[in-house]
Amino acid sequence: MLKKEDYQQHISAKFNTELESLRNHMLSMGGKVEHQLSEALEALVKMDSGEAELIVRRDSEVNQMEMAIDDECATIIARRQPTASDLRLIIAIIKVNRDLERIGDEAAKVAKQAVRISEDGKSPSNFVEIKHIGAMVGVMLREALDAFARLDVDQAVAVVRDDDEVDKEYGSAMRSLITFMVEDPRNIGVILNEMWALRSLERIGDHACNIAEHVVYLVRGLDVRHGRLNELRDGDGEL
Amino acid sequence: MLKKEDYQQHISAKFNTELESLRNHMLSMGGKVEHQLSEALEALVKMDSGEAELIVRRDSEVNQMEMAIDDECATIIARRQPTASDLRLIIAIIKVNRDLERIGDEAAKVAKQAVRISEDGKSPSNFVEIKHIGAMVGVMLREALDAFARLDVDQAVAVVRDDDEVDKEYGSAMRSLITFMVEDPRNIGVILNEMWALRSLERIGDHACNIAEHVVYLVRGLDVRHGRLNELRDGDGEL
Repeated sequence: MLKKEDYQQHISAKFNTELESLRNHMLSMGGKVEHQLSEALEALVKMDSGEAELIVRRDSEVNQMEMAIDDECATIIARRQPTASDLRLIIAIIKVNRDLERIGDEAAKVAKQAVRISEDGKSPSNFVEIKHIGAMVGVMLREALDAFARLDVDQAVAVVRDDDEVDKEYGSAMRSLITFMVEDPRNIGVILNEMWALRSLERIGDHACNIAEHVVYLVRGLDVRHGRLNELRDGDGEL
Repeated sequence: MLKKEDYQQHISAKFNTELESLRNHMLSMGGKVEHQLSEALEALVKMDSGEAELIVRRDSEVNQMEMAIDDECATIIARRQPTASDLRLIIAIIKVNRDLERIGDEAAKVAKQAVRISEDGKSPSNFVEIKHIGAMVGVMLREALDAFARLDVDQAVAVVRDDDEVDKEYGSAMRSLITFMVEDPRNIGVILNEMWALRSLERIGDHACNIAEHVVYLVRGLDVRHGRLNELRDGDGEL
């Protein structure tokens, strides 16, 4: 016969397996979204509209994943009634899930701009800004997911700092693209498409930053959204 | 002595009070965000940079509200261990909360563009597009919050449909603004600022649409995100 303790251990082992599987689903959605982003950037720079259209179509797979993970979270909460730290993990996953879906959306928007750019013809910018900022946010996303997988606060804080850098680069990229528009108004159309793509990349950086902030919240129980990280940095010099 | 049933009724009455108060906090955050949006639009159209700066500063109040509501949700889940429909309500509030905070962010971005536009001088567009689309998304937001307050599916579906209209108007507004740029490249700066403001308004429409979709999910248990609503419309002609 099963003793009560064995039974509870059994329940708890099952619960851990469920949490682990939830975490894995979220991380594999992260991998998928990362892939969508890098393919969208490649399609844009190569002006490959066929590839870009494939990426736009694949966004629905990411959307399906989001809904499945949400359902999984609701089922676990209802069935296991987790407390404190487990609940915090599940709520963090609900939020990261949303950020990942948004990143997928923005990657699809980059791909849509790739289709338009391939129709409008080459840009005078040679996509220098897009390549540069695209590479930066790609690294941020990978590192944010890594930080989540290993619950690594230091890495998460590094991602939040990178986002400041991306915002600065974004500002200067915009100024240099405006120069191309002013120099020759025939460039306005293609440059606008590049600007929308850059805007999407900047948003992807924001979402990667959100993911990193959830890691800090999970590990430290400290809500660093909305500038609390800066307060802390200014306060005692370290987190 | 308290009987077990009385005790459970007592617990359940307290739980209902907590849920009701959570719902009210969310709706009052909604009201705040609505106010931020209408003030930002007014500041932009009147090119009032003083008012615009106040709005940007007030965004931190919205951010505080978001964190407080998240905490309230986590506390209720941990303490009451709600099942099925109550849990669905709380998860919906977590998500609506996020959408409202984003709307607050976008309203602050509109206010930032208002500051820039007041520096750049009057636009040749007379802000016709911004007034028009701003009014549309303002109505969408109010109706989405109303639909949530009254759990009114019909109104929620109407909001989702309005979003298609906003997307169409946004496309034609962009084309007319491009015309102003091409006609006179000296307009490029101010028109770009208008375009960013319009982009923010279009995003606010998307978030209002998300809120409406959560209402449909709550009432019908039907996930209409990611185009399911359209599938349904195409399928049996009505929801």
